[in-house]
Amino acid sequence: MIKIAIIGSGNVAQHLIDAFAKSKAIDVIQVFSRTQNQIISNIDFSKITTDWNALKEADLYIIAVSDDAITKVSSQLPFENRLVVHTSGSAPLTSLDNKNRKGVFYPLQTFTKGKAIDFKTIPLCLETQIEKDYTILNEVAVSISNNVYSIDSNQRKALHVAAVFVNNFTNHLYQIGNEICQENNVPFNILKPLILETAEKIMTLSPKDAQTGPAKRNDSTTINAHESFLSDENQSKIYKILTQSIQNHGKKL
Amino acid sequence: MIKIAIIGSGNVAQHLIDAFAKSKAIDVIQVFSRTQNQIISNIDFSKITTDWNALKEADLYIIAVSDDAITKVSSQLPFENRLVVHTSGSAPLTSLDNKNRKGVFYPLQTFTKGKAIDFKTIPLCLETQIEKDYTILNEVAVSISNNVYSIDSNQRKALHVAAVFVNNFTNHLYQIGNEICQENNVPFNILKPLILETAEKIMTLSPKDAQTGPAKRNDSTTINAHESFLSDENQSKIYKILTQSIQNHGKKL
Repeated sequence: MIKIAIIGSGNVAQHLIDAFAKSKAIDVIQVFSRTQNQIISNIDFSKITTDWNALKEADLYIIAVSDDAITKVSSQLPFENRLVVHTSGSAPLTSLDNKNRKGVFYPLQTFTKGKAIDFKTIPLCLETQIEKDYTILNEVAVSISNNVYSIDSNQRKALHVAAVFVNNFTNHLYQIGNEICQENNVPFNILKPLILETAEKIMTLSPKDAQTGPAKRNDSTTINAHESFLSDENQSKIYKILTQSIQNHGKKL
Repeated sequence: MIKIAIIGSGNVAQHLIDAFAKSKAIDVIQVFSRTQNQIISNIDFSKITTDWNALKEADLYIIAVSDDAITKVSSQLPFENRLVVHTSGSAPLTSLDNKNRKGVFYPLQTFTKGKAIDFKTIPLCLETQIEKDYTILNEVAVSISNNVYSIDSNQRKALHVAAVFVNNFTNHLYQIGNEICQENNVPFNILKPLILETAEKIMTLSPKDAQTGPAKRNDSTTINAHESFLSDENQSKIYKILTQSIQNHGKKL
């Protein structure tokens, strides 16, 4: 069994604890939480510590804290030359303190507190400084996920930006769709099957082949009608810039 | 049995034919296609006509053609005072010729040729001029879908614009995500579980509650890192405008 200690008690930490609890190859021997009163499930209460000096020897320490706390947390670890990884998509490997062997264990998914998720489907992006450590990290990763990738810091930076487009920005477009519905007394629920199908289409078609709509068709009558319909300046600006971008992509082909 | 004639042989027409074939309440007595050599399945070949004057008497005529052909096609129908509807999200009721009773039968979904879809889940947005016709249209709609809504032309206009945001623009963000991956030698497949989960989240959470990411957190370190990472002018412009929009929405709350 590979012994793991998890530093952190947020969403990512909790989802990792849940996933490791199902794996026979992994023993989560300890969880470090800043405050004792965090509700952490799927772990014996006796394994939770708030004391850096009480941290036991493990094969792998996973720091699952907010990006800006990674450097500080990694420097507080009271040991050297052990394998310490963070779980961030945007922090580089170098944000970890030099005294330990560094790595990254980045689950590329959006985690919601209380919403169960099948960890087997979540892509895990791994990086280590030395090959021996990659073997350990890979063994841990394949024990909980079917999608394990070797991704260096540059690739991870690209992935994280791309994830902002397909997740954060997409969700914001859902929010604007919701606004337009509310402003016009239409239930947002009508759009939900379309939202799902738009995502599902991409599982088999390339986004280029899946593109439809007035911008793609260069249907200026509909585009003009939409632009005069949108009275909100922000909505209108986003409509124009994304319509132009779709049209320019069409010209490139 | 309600007798229906379908005018058109494109994606929407074909999906309607498939859906009606499963309904015991509906008899598709005829399909009008401009050219005989279109491949239309789930209908007897003898029921396909290319001749306006061969159109039989039906309870309902569904015009499933491109938006800009609706007016011309509806004026070519060689009869009067029958119920004629179009299937467009953006064309108003008034785009239909006055000689017949008008209505709209708008399935709010993105149809892909050859990709099966469960019609029961597709929202159907109905509108008629007179109440008696609404009863007929509603009976047809509930025989193939569990999501039937009464939506007037103004509401439908709003819905269509909202659909452009959550479908066309969202798909374009997937395309940009794909581009960023390709430019940095990362498989786009890594993003697919995230794309699906982003859509699925919205089935139970409001988009406002589901919003995450650097813009939402006002994490200027990450935003600046992303902006300097993006060398493509178009990607960079879209990143900035959507980040600002998320930040401004945050301030409104």
